[in-house]
Amino acid sequence: MDEDEIDALVERLAEEAKAAARRLARLPTERKDAVLRRVCGALRGPAGDALLEANRRDLLAAEGMALPEAMLDRLRLDRPRLDAVADGVEAIVALPDPVGRVEDSRKLPNGLSVSRVRVPLGLIGFIYESRPNVTADAAALCIKSGNAILLRGGKEAFESNRAFAAIFEEALEAEGLPKAAVTLLPTVDRRATLAMIRLVGVVDLVIPRGGEGLIRFVSENARVPVIQHYKGMCHVYVDGGADLDAAEAIAVNAKVHRPGVCNAMETLLVDRAIAEAFLPRVSRALLEEGVELRGDPAVCALVPEARAAVARDWDTEHLSKILNVAVVDGIDAALVHIERHGSKHTEAIVTDSYARAQRWVREVDASLVLVNASTRFNDGFQLGLGAEIGISTTKLHAYGPMGLAELCTLKWVGYGEGQIRR
Amino acid sequence: MDEDEIDALVERLAEEAKAAARRLARLPTERKDAVLRRVCGALRGPAGDALLEANRRDLLAAEGMALPEAMLDRLRLDRPRLDAVADGVEAIVALPDPVGRVEDSRKLPNGLSVSRVRVPLGLIGFIYESRPNVTADAAALCIKSGNAILLRGGKEAFESNRAFAAIFEEALEAEGLPKAAVTLLPTVDRRATLAMIRLVGVVDLVIPRGGEGLIRFVSENARVPVIQHYKGMCHVYVDGGADLDAAEAIAVNAKVHRPGVCNAMETLLVDRAIAEAFLPRVSRALLEEGVELRGDPAVCALVPEARAAVARDWDTEHLSKILNVAVVDGIDAALVHIERHGSKHTEAIVTDSYARAQRWVREVDASLVLVNASTRFNDGFQLGLGAEIGISTTKLHAYGPMGLAELCTLKWVGYGEGQIRR
Repeated sequence: MDEDEIDALVERLAEEAKAAARRLARLPTERKDAVLRRVCGALRGPAGDALLEANRRDLLAAEGMALPEAMLDRLRLDRPRLDAVADGVEAIVALPDPVGRVEDSRKLPNGLSVSRVRVPLGLIGFIYESRPNVTADAAALCIKSGNAILLRGGKEAFESNRAFAAIFEEALEAEGLPKAAVTLLPTVDRRATLAMIRLVGVVDLVIPRGGEGLIRFVSENARVPVIQHYKGMCHVYVDGGADLDAAEAIAVNAKVHRPGVCNAMETLLVDRAIAEAFLPRVSRALLEEGVELRGDPAVCALVPEARAAVARDWDTEHLSKILNVAVVDGIDAALVHIERHGSKHTEAIVTDSYARAQRWVREVDASLVLVNASTRFNDGFQLGLGAEIGISTTKLHAYGPMGLAELCTLKWVGYGEGQIRR
Repeated sequence: MDEDEIDALVERLAEEAKAAARRLARLPTERKDAVLRRVCGALRGPAGDALLEANRRDLLAAEGMALPEAMLDRLRLDRPRLDAVADGVEAIVALPDPVGRVEDSRKLPNGLSVSRVRVPLGLIGFIYESRPNVTADAAALCIKSGNAILLRGGKEAFESNRAFAAIFEEALEAEGLPKAAVTLLPTVDRRATLAMIRLVGVVDLVIPRGGEGLIRFVSENARVPVIQHYKGMCHVYVDGGADLDAAEAIAVNAKVHRPGVCNAMETLLVDRAIAEAFLPRVSRALLEEGVELRGDPAVCALVPEARAAVARDWDTEHLSKILNVAVVDGIDAALVHIERHGSKHTEAIVTDSYARAQRWVREVDASLVLVNASTRFNDGFQLGLGAEIGISTTKLHAYGPMGLAELCTLKWVGYGEGQIRR
């Protein structure tokens, strides 16, 4: 296909998905849940086997590409993982329908009854990498929230993504609904992504979720609204006077509980006042967990196992058991460091000071600001949203986890009896 | 200045404004209100006279440009208009501070207390045309909501805008605050606009408010998030069986109460079932108010005064006493017309049918959907927000009037006692 053909194809698919979005927006909850229940049944049955077969084809192709083992692991599906995907879809069925929820109802002095009603955004463009199970999570969230979804997955997972999309298409058709409500772009050509993010008036929102290159490409080229699910350059700052047992437990948890995710800690900041007391013990605990430490000179002086950090480290989301560690002169220096190197994702303080806890909460600009808790809590499930399509580091619309409610907007509705402006 | 110099200047001004935004974000309500009270005092005193003087220079220059009288009128300031601006700023002082308002508080099963706290967006880029009083409204709303503002006004109002900005700068300095919190770009070169809308990480949101050319330029070139305050292609649909007195009053009010604003009706849709009964009487009432009617063939057959509408009319925001009128085959055809020609601003039905009222509310995609009321109610004051920076037709973040709350975002805050993920 040449570029014009790709543009035409993407436009046609997006128009069909948009028409499907109009149908989905008006569906009662029962119909949407019925689709998702069919998807669960398919995942647990023969269609699941076909999906695992497709996944094996992806893995075979990937072997030729010399991908790192971490990426192969993200790509790999098996029965337990597929059951976990089905469990996730079932959990979405169990969540309340956000559509039609009424907020801010009021009666104006002239008798007009106005309120804000939650309605689907329309057509969501979703651009993501590697893990194919994200296809099912994102599609299920969009169906439940009355949106259609146009998916552009990673090329390594193309066959798996296609099999997931086919399961949704069949479930939609079996319920008499347009299968275009879940549309996977049939090409991973970058031109298709470009076409998709420029369809003003058709695609209502684009969510890029992945690495720096992907996010930058989308942000620089999109003509439609974008909510970035960007990197998590998360910090834990251990303040002088902190409970060192709690600080150690939080630091270890934030780094090693799941190092490859965006809410893992990348940099530990330690107040100079307690550096001598805290750094050796926390380093021991981290080293025991296999963490590699990259420290500033003050850290390296106290921790012989630490190697010297380079400038780039303070801005690098390692997504592995590598941790940057710096000694700072109290909360002021910690705030400056985060202002400069943070990514507005998750920032935690460990402190016993009421005043500094309050200051932290007020002054740190991040989607989740924590006192005395692990950064790992920035997650839609943990925060009570039930499920999430990702974690937004864009301040507009949704700052932090995006759940069903955040896949909707609020429209104003007014019921009158002939009111006019005087 | 060449393009590189303009880029450098805009970047420096924006960085200064952003630093000011960090100060403003933490200010107690009293300090922000004190700034605004000083602005009111200045507007009502000698600084107001200087402002009127600056406005006269703009008007003089405009005379040479052969601008239409409507535009000259929007540009013109006098004592009563300036007092109205001061009244508007005082009204903003009286509104509750949105910053720090807590929502969705909950205690997670592990004891972590989480909530969402309203915080300023940061630095708002505001691009607008003609009316200089918008400078004061927008700056006052941003200060009250803890945001800094970077203003790019129309070239016709440059001197007036500069005088408004100077009043805010003096008020900020008198309160010991950085005057960069209200920064007017010192050039109206389009390159400056371009530089401003590409400052990713510095400008947190750009709001373009104006004509189609401006909105398109910003949307196509911005790298930072944009909320469009776009045109109002608003419709009133008069359904068969509607109370014709109410329908006539609503149609006349929606068109003539203030024809030059975005929530004025541009197209009247009449159900074929009542066309013969309703069109002659509503036309008479509209013609009496000096409205020019542009009808489809069915309308022209019933209303001799109507001239034939051309295809372009159905998409034209006349912003004057020109009204498009069409006969449609019931609510289905009305919905199709609006889907095709509406601008997601305001859409009203006049009906006596419960079912069709509910269907209208459910199926029309617009920031305000009305039953039996004039489109003129889509307004932050009318809907109870207290004040507005404009009306968003972007579905993300704020759909409809943007008030103080919509100039903020919600950040998550969690207070723990050492919680870690298990």
